[in-house]
Amino acid sequence: MGDSFLPVPGVRLGVAGAAIKHPDRDDLLVIELPEGASCAAVFTRNAFRAAPVLLAERHLRAAAPRYLLINSGNANAGTGEQGLRDGLSCCQTLADLGGCQLEQVLPFSTGVIGENLPLERVQQALPEAFADLDEAAWPAAAQAIMTTDTVPKLVSRQTEIDGIGVRVTGIAKGAGMIRPDMATMLGFLATDLAVEPGLLQTCLEEAVGPSFNSITVDGDTSTNDSCVLMASARSVQVSNARSPLYLGLCELVNEVCMELARDIVRDGEGATKLVEIRVEAARSEAEARQVAYTIAHSPLVKTALFAADPNWGRILAAVGRAGVEGLEIEGVEIWLDQVCIVRDGGRYPEYTESAGSQVMERDEYTIRVLLGRGGASARVLTCDLSYDYVRINAEYRT
Amino acid sequence: MGDSFLPVPGVRLGVAGAAIKHPDRDDLLVIELPEGASCAAVFTRNAFRAAPVLLAERHLRAAAPRYLLINSGNANAGTGEQGLRDGLSCCQTLADLGGCQLEQVLPFSTGVIGENLPLERVQQALPEAFADLDEAAWPAAAQAIMTTDTVPKLVSRQTEIDGIGVRVTGIAKGAGMIRPDMATMLGFLATDLAVEPGLLQTCLEEAVGPSFNSITVDGDTSTNDSCVLMASARSVQVSNARSPLYLGLCELVNEVCMELARDIVRDGEGATKLVEIRVEAARSEAEARQVAYTIAHSPLVKTALFAADPNWGRILAAVGRAGVEGLEIEGVEIWLDQVCIVRDGGRYPEYTESAGSQVMERDEYTIRVLLGRGGASARVLTCDLSYDYVRINAEYRT
Repeated sequence: MGDSFLPVPGVRLGVAGAAIKHPDRDDLLVIELPEGASCAAVFTRNAFRAAPVLLAERHLRAAAPRYLLINSGNANAGTGEQGLRDGLSCCQTLADLGGCQLEQVLPFSTGVIGENLPLERVQQALPEAFADLDEAAWPAAAQAIMTTDTVPKLVSRQTEIDGIGVRVTGIAKGAGMIRPDMATMLGFLATDLAVEPGLLQTCLEEAVGPSFNSITVDGDTSTNDSCVLMASARSVQVSNARSPLYLGLCELVNEVCMELARDIVRDGEGATKLVEIRVEAARSEAEARQVAYTIAHSPLVKTALFAADPNWGRILAAVGRAGVEGLEIEGVEIWLDQVCIVRDGGRYPEYTESAGSQVMERDEYTIRVLLGRGGASARVLTCDLSYDYVRINAEYRT
Repeated sequence: MGDSFLPVPGVRLGVAGAAIKHPDRDDLLVIELPEGASCAAVFTRNAFRAAPVLLAERHLRAAAPRYLLINSGNANAGTGEQGLRDGLSCCQTLADLGGCQLEQVLPFSTGVIGENLPLERVQQALPEAFADLDEAAWPAAAQAIMTTDTVPKLVSRQTEIDGIGVRVTGIAKGAGMIRPDMATMLGFLATDLAVEPGLLQTCLEEAVGPSFNSITVDGDTSTNDSCVLMASARSVQVSNARSPLYLGLCELVNEVCMELARDIVRDGEGATKLVEIRVEAARSEAEARQVAYTIAHSPLVKTALFAADPNWGRILAAVGRAGVEGLEIEGVEIWLDQVCIVRDGGRYPEYTESAGSQVMERDEYTIRVLLGRGGASARVLTCDLSYDYVRINAEYRT
C-alpha cells in the first residue's frame, strides 16, 4: 500500500465490526456516493454467482447507486433463496439509514462460501459504519474488506489534463481463489469526474482485461468477484469517448487496476515471488493466454518458482501440454528475464544453470516464451506455490 | 504392490545400475520379447514429446519389437537432435547384444527433463541387464523404473476362458507430473496370448481411457508418458475381436490398468488421500470430464482434501468455473460418499458438518457431483495437495 492516498471528493466511507468471522476487527464497509454520481461494475463469470453478485447486478440496472455495502468473512454464496433474502435485508437497512431506495444499494460479500450471513449482527453494526462516513476513510476501508490478505491494498493516482485535475483512488482485496474472470475478488475505484455510465463501463472493462483478468494465484475463480468504478461527479463532466480527459481517466484507471492487481498477486496466499508470464509470437491472443495460464497454473512450475530452481523442463512440459495445435518445439524459445534457456528444441548452448538461478533468486522476474508461430501475445501475473499456500488453505476454517 | 505376481512365459526382464541420477540403484531395465510376439503402445499427447517417445513410435511402425529399453533418472526430453542420437545409440547397443535390428528396440525414459543422457554409462551397464534377463524379474523391473515413486507398482491378474488360462502382468511408474493424456508416465503390461497387433492396440486403447487417462495428481502431462502392452505368443492365438478369449483378455488388461492407475494416484507426490471424482447427469461425457478435472485440479479443493475439511464451497466454486454453458445451480447436487451436501442451490438441510468430516477422514472416498442436465458421466481419480507435494517438488533437483 502506498503511504499516501487521495480522497475522492463526494465519496465517503465508513467501517464497523459485525463479528462476522472474527470478533475484534472491522468487517463491514459502507461507501456513499453523492446524488448524480455514476457507477460501472464487472462481475465474476463463475456459473454459481453469489447472492450479492446477483443483487448488485439487478440493482445496478434498476437505479443509480447511492451506497455500496461490503462485508468480509462470509461470501453469502451457495446460500440459495435464503442468501438473496439476507442480502436484500441488509440493503434495506442501509437504504433506511441513507434515505434512499432499496435498489440504490449494491451489496458485496467475500469470505467463506456456503454459510448464511449473520444477519442480525450485520444489521446492528450498520448504523455505526453509517455514522462513520468520511472522505478520509480509504485506509480503514482497505482493511475492512481483507480476508486472507496480509496487507491492505490501496492505490491512488492523479494527473492534470487540459488544466483539469483527475484522480482515481481504489482499494482491492484478494489473496486466494484468485483467477479472476471479468474482475478480481473485490475492487472499488472512484474518481471525482462526472462520467456517463456507458463510458464509465467501457473504461472499467478495458482496464480489468490486462490487470485483474490477467492474474492468477491458484486458478480458482471466485463466486463473488466484483469490481466497481464510481464517478462522484464533483469535478467536470466527461461525455466524449475521444476527449483527452476521458483518455486520461482511462489511463489512470488502468494504472490503478494494474497496481492493485500486482498487489493482489504479491500478497497471493503463501507467495514469495511475483512472476510475469509473457507469451509472444503466438497465432492469436487466445492461444498466447492459454499457454500463459497453463504455465501459471502448473503446480510443478509453481513449486520450482518457490525453490528458485531453474528446472525449465517443467516450463517446457507445460507449454507442450497447453493444447496448441501443431506446436513445434524447434520454434520455441524460453527466457528468464534476459537469459535465454531454450532455443531450437533444446537447451540454449550458452545457457548456464547459474545464470538461470540468478534470475530466479529475484523477488520479481519474467518468464518469456516465444512460440514462433505468429505475432500475438499475452501476459499473466502469477506467484509461486509454497508450503504456506498449503498451510493457509488447509487451516482456513479451523 | 501385490505380494505375488505371475511371470509371463516368453517375457524376460533384466535390470542394471547405470548411475544415471543416483549411484547406488538399478535404473536400467531391459524387457525381451520372443520371436512372434506383438506389441501395442500409446504415447503422450504433449506437443513436446521426448526423443525416446519419437523413436519408440517410429520403431514400432517399422518392425516387430524384440526389446524394450527403459531408463529412469533422465527423461531425454527437451534435448533436441542430441537426444535422438543418444536414444538411437542406446538402442543400437542393445540390438547388438540381442542380435536384432535397431528398429526392433523400443526406448523409454523417465526423469529430469532437459539434460542429456549419460550415454557411456548407459551403454556400459547394458550388458549386465542383458545377462540378467529372467522371466521372474518383474519385481526388480518395477523398482528400476521408479523416480519419485515411493513404492513399486506391479499387478498381475489371471482367469480361465474356455479352458484356456489367460494372464496379464504389468508394471508402472509415476507419482508427479501426472495427468496422462493417452497413457500414463510409463506402464508395461504383458500377456502370454498371441494377439494380432491391431487387436492388441484396440485392447490397450480401450483400457487406458478409464484408467491411466482418468487420473491426475497435479494436472501436468509429462513429455514421456508411454504405455505398452506386449503379447508374447506363448499361448493360444487370439484373432477375433468378438471371441470370449479376446474379451476376457480386455477385461484383464482393464483390471491391471485400473489397479496400476490407482497405485499411481495413491503414491501421488505427497498424497495422503485417494479421491474419486464422479460427475453425473451431464449433457456429454466431455462436459462431465471437464467438471471432474476442474475439481481435481483445484488447489483449494486439494488442500481441503488434505485438511479433511468439508469446505464444500470450494467444490461448488470449482464446478461453477468449469466453463459449462448455462449451468444452473438449482439442479446441482454434491455428495461425499453417501452424504448429500448440496441440493437446490444451497446446503442440503439435513447435512451436518460432522457427517461431512467423517467421510473426509477416510483414506479413500468419492466426491459425486450431479449436474442435473443429462445422462452422461465421467470419473477421475485424484489425490490431495499436501506440504509434502511442495517439499518433494521444491527439492526435486537439489
